[in-house]
Amino acid sequence: MSETFKQLQKYLDKQNAISLALTLLEWDLETLAPKKSVEHTSKAVGILAAEEYEAIINDDVRELLHRFDEESEYEQLSVVEKKIIKELRKRYEQLEKIPVKEYQEYQELLAKASSIWTKAKEEDCFELFEEMLEKIFEYAMKFGNYCKKDRESAYDRALMDYEECFTTKHLDQFFEELKACIVPLLRKVNEKKDFVKDDFLYQYYDPKKQEEFCNFLAKYIGFDFDKGVIAKSSHPFTTNLHNNDVRITNHFYENNLASAIFSVIHEGGHALYEMGIADEYTMTLVGGGTSMGMHESQSRMYENMIGRSLEFWTPIYGKLQETFMEQLKEVSLEQFVRAINKAQSSLIRTEADELSYCLHVIIRYEIEKDIFDGKIRIKDLPQIWNQKYKEYLGIAPENDRVGVLQDIHWACGNIGYFPSYALGNAIAAQMYATMKQAIPVEELLKQGDLIQIRQYLGEQVHQFGKTKNTDEILMDMTGESLNPKYYTDYLYEKYTKLYEL
Amino acid sequence: MSETFKQLQKYLDKQNAISLALTLLEWDLETLAPKKSVEHTSKAVGILAAEEYEAIINDDVRELLHRFDEESEYEQLSVVEKKIIKELRKRYEQLEKIPVKEYQEYQELLAKASSIWTKAKEEDCFELFEEMLEKIFEYAMKFGNYCKKDRESAYDRALMDYEECFTTKHLDQFFEELKACIVPLLRKVNEKKDFVKDDFLYQYYDPKKQEEFCNFLAKYIGFDFDKGVIAKSSHPFTTNLHNNDVRITNHFYENNLASAIFSVIHEGGHALYEMGIADEYTMTLVGGGTSMGMHESQSRMYENMIGRSLEFWTPIYGKLQETFMEQLKEVSLEQFVRAINKAQSSLIRTEADELSYCLHVIIRYEIEKDIFDGKIRIKDLPQIWNQKYKEYLGIAPENDRVGVLQDIHWACGNIGYFPSYALGNAIAAQMYATMKQAIPVEELLKQGDLIQIRQYLGEQVHQFGKTKNTDEILMDMTGESLNPKYYTDYLYEKYTKLYEL
Repeated sequence: MSETFKQLQKYLDKQNAISLALTLLEWDLETLAPKKSVEHTSKAVGILAAEEYEAIINDDVRELLHRFDEESEYEQLSVVEKKIIKELRKRYEQLEKIPVKEYQEYQELLAKASSIWTKAKEEDCFELFEEMLEKIFEYAMKFGNYCKKDRESAYDRALMDYEECFTTKHLDQFFEELKACIVPLLRKVNEKKDFVKDDFLYQYYDPKKQEEFCNFLAKYIGFDFDKGVIAKSSHPFTTNLHNNDVRITNHFYENNLASAIFSVIHEGGHALYEMGIADEYTMTLVGGGTSMGMHESQSRMYENMIGRSLEFWTPIYGKLQETFMEQLKEVSLEQFVRAINKAQSSLIRTEADELSYCLHVIIRYEIEKDIFDGKIRIKDLPQIWNQKYKEYLGIAPENDRVGVLQDIHWACGNIGYFPSYALGNAIAAQMYATMKQAIPVEELLKQGDLIQIRQYLGEQVHQFGKTKNTDEILMDMTGESLNPKYYTDYLYEKYTKLYEL
Repeated sequence: MSETFKQLQKYLDKQNAISLALTLLEWDLETLAPKKSVEHTSKAVGILAAEEYEAIINDDVRELLHRFDEESEYEQLSVVEKKIIKELRKRYEQLEKIPVKEYQEYQELLAKASSIWTKAKEEDCFELFEEMLEKIFEYAMKFGNYCKKDRESAYDRALMDYEECFTTKHLDQFFEELKACIVPLLRKVNEKKDFVKDDFLYQYYDPKKQEEFCNFLAKYIGFDFDKGVIAKSSHPFTTNLHNNDVRITNHFYENNLASAIFSVIHEGGHALYEMGIADEYTMTLVGGGTSMGMHESQSRMYENMIGRSLEFWTPIYGKLQETFMEQLKEVSLEQFVRAINKAQSSLIRTEADELSYCLHVIIRYEIEKDIFDGKIRIKDLPQIWNQKYKEYLGIAPENDRVGVLQDIHWACGNIGYFPSYALGNAIAAQMYATMKQAIPVEELLKQGDLIQIRQYLGEQVHQFGKTKNTDEILMDMTGESLNPKYYTDYLYEKYTKLYEL
């Protein structure tokens, strides 16, 4: 083993341990911690975040890292170690541009933000969150400016935190292509508003039974309860300490069956990715999913291409009917599948159908870009949000709870994150087309055999962690870079058929 | 503010933040973490434990601490800061004697130990745990030897980790006094075996309903759910991140009503202590209960003196009857209270009645002492355990699950802890006698007003954290040092009356 790497390992291990603790603290604050815990605990979170930062951003690490500039040093490294060095260099370049004090202040701020957002949302009062949101965007812009390279904007940098392969240059074009397909298609679908009947999904469904069925679904798609946990939170999310400790949350609405079901399949898709990362990578800098775009491709593929297909429900719809006999006894498998694919303009991103989904993302993308460009003030957000919904989806939120306050992302500092969802959809469609050539996906789904699908994605995507980037994974698996046509074709075919357009 | 203290504060804050993260990791491993998580997570725990250690055991801190040897520096400190310096000096003296590498190895070992203990207990197989237990005792003895001062033994040091005011010299005598009272009294009680009827406590009691009632009880005694959480674990325990985040666990047995009820009152007593610590102390080195002896005095006082009294149950027994109408409709308040005070020799410490309880402690104390003195080998523990139970309680465990494997303490490295329970009983009795003079305890209990009791204990005990030690709290509150006579008198009167001896 390289003596230099051995010295470096100590710092990497420390960074990993603190990062793991921070992940657990964040999970706990979202799921279990008592209400009044947040003030004191945030202080500790801020300190630990600074410690994590300083664990790898320091003179010793800088010096050790530079030693690998020499060919003879570098060539002593194993393949995995080389990947780790590459990732460390990348982080180093970015993080060292941010003053540690500001980084710590920002982390402390974030630790408090989500409880403030929760309160603002509960009370439907944007003003409660406004000042905090302003500060969060200020930090994000400041950090973006610190880190940007030539020809990049601060917002490009924010985007690259989640998906390094796509900046505004790519995204502007990508979203134009999506809009060109989705906007006219959705207009036609909206005109046939009652063509797909789904009212039976909005009866009373016992939350306890929903929870049981959702846990079954998680297991069915391959979630390993020996390596994972499911808890409750207001906004479902996935996190992980390492590949043997992956956690998802879910929520249950009394009068909505589909929400919890597709949340658990979505988060389950994220979880399978993290559970599938190779043992040699976990607990290292390359031990997580390669990007949020790639992550969303896995969650959205499970949620939509797999989870909303007739084939997926063929072997298990009977079980759902048994669980909710009273509500579903008159509903056939085909009627159920039509219903869960219904499209129409709506207000909540997480509840949106596949067709309109990307419009929700585009709105957020445009808003974030405009804030960074100084074209929008935070205090005007509710109004601008509502205007854009009117413009793209033809409907406007009646309050901020279902408007600008709906997502937790900004409260977590996840600015530049939203495009990942749309990228994820497009990546998913491209991959799904390839997967169907490689293995008999529909046949397997009909047989209730989801293991092969998980294995295939494990081999093609999951195992690599961050050792391959999104573009590399796509190229190796599908033979081409991201091509939105797979996704727009998929949407066009699906909804033309479903709505008989 | 003292410039020196300000510099020191940075190190103290870091230590506190890491300690908080470790507490959460430990809580999570006991309550929620998936089974296969432990291996990877333990690695991070070991690293963080070393970081916590190094945060205050380093040359900078040593140098800063020495500056306060000078009167002029020391006198610049506030009262709280002086208390913190005193506590830091104490820890410093001990911790710096332990090589950091050994400390880290030990913490890593402990992070794995409790899952091994759980497995050994589940499979009733001491051999599974033997090697781990041997290692844990080796570390404890080694550390005791590193830290002991003149005339102290290694075991004295282990004891002082939990209760600095009492070493083997005091405890040998203390336990002799207890034995002199308890052994003959228990013998007489055992002779009147069926004098107190309690079979109705061992019917089927729906665990869900037990849980609801126990949560009510927690709230009733003053547990603040805005500052606390209750979860499940096989062995109930209390932990806390700070005074606004205090967590207890409970367990529920289908055929045992009393177990969960007295567990939640016991852990609730611990929780009230931690919730009651002054804001100016929490998140600092003096921000926890002063000793495990004092901690157990609060939990045991709530569990036994308060929780098993007729007055306590007078206003709430009706609610319990309503919850379990079928099981309790024929049982009067008086019959119920007699039943929950029944005494008899039994095998499980946590389920033991008040009278026999200390004998369980004495057995563990003698065993630990003998291991430290080299008189007992770990592999012989099951046999020795069973002999001692025969000798002191007149009964022997039929297997190790209800014998030597019953307690989690050794798996957590809590060697020297058990005497705290007996000390806690004695402290509780002494305090309870004083409290009854100061406020009308029995009247308050009958009125269902537990707030005043909590307030009184808050003022006398809880608020101080570690700024006063056990002896100082006892002196200030009761006017004398620990006097076991309060406890032996209490037991004698109670059981003579109950059993009409």
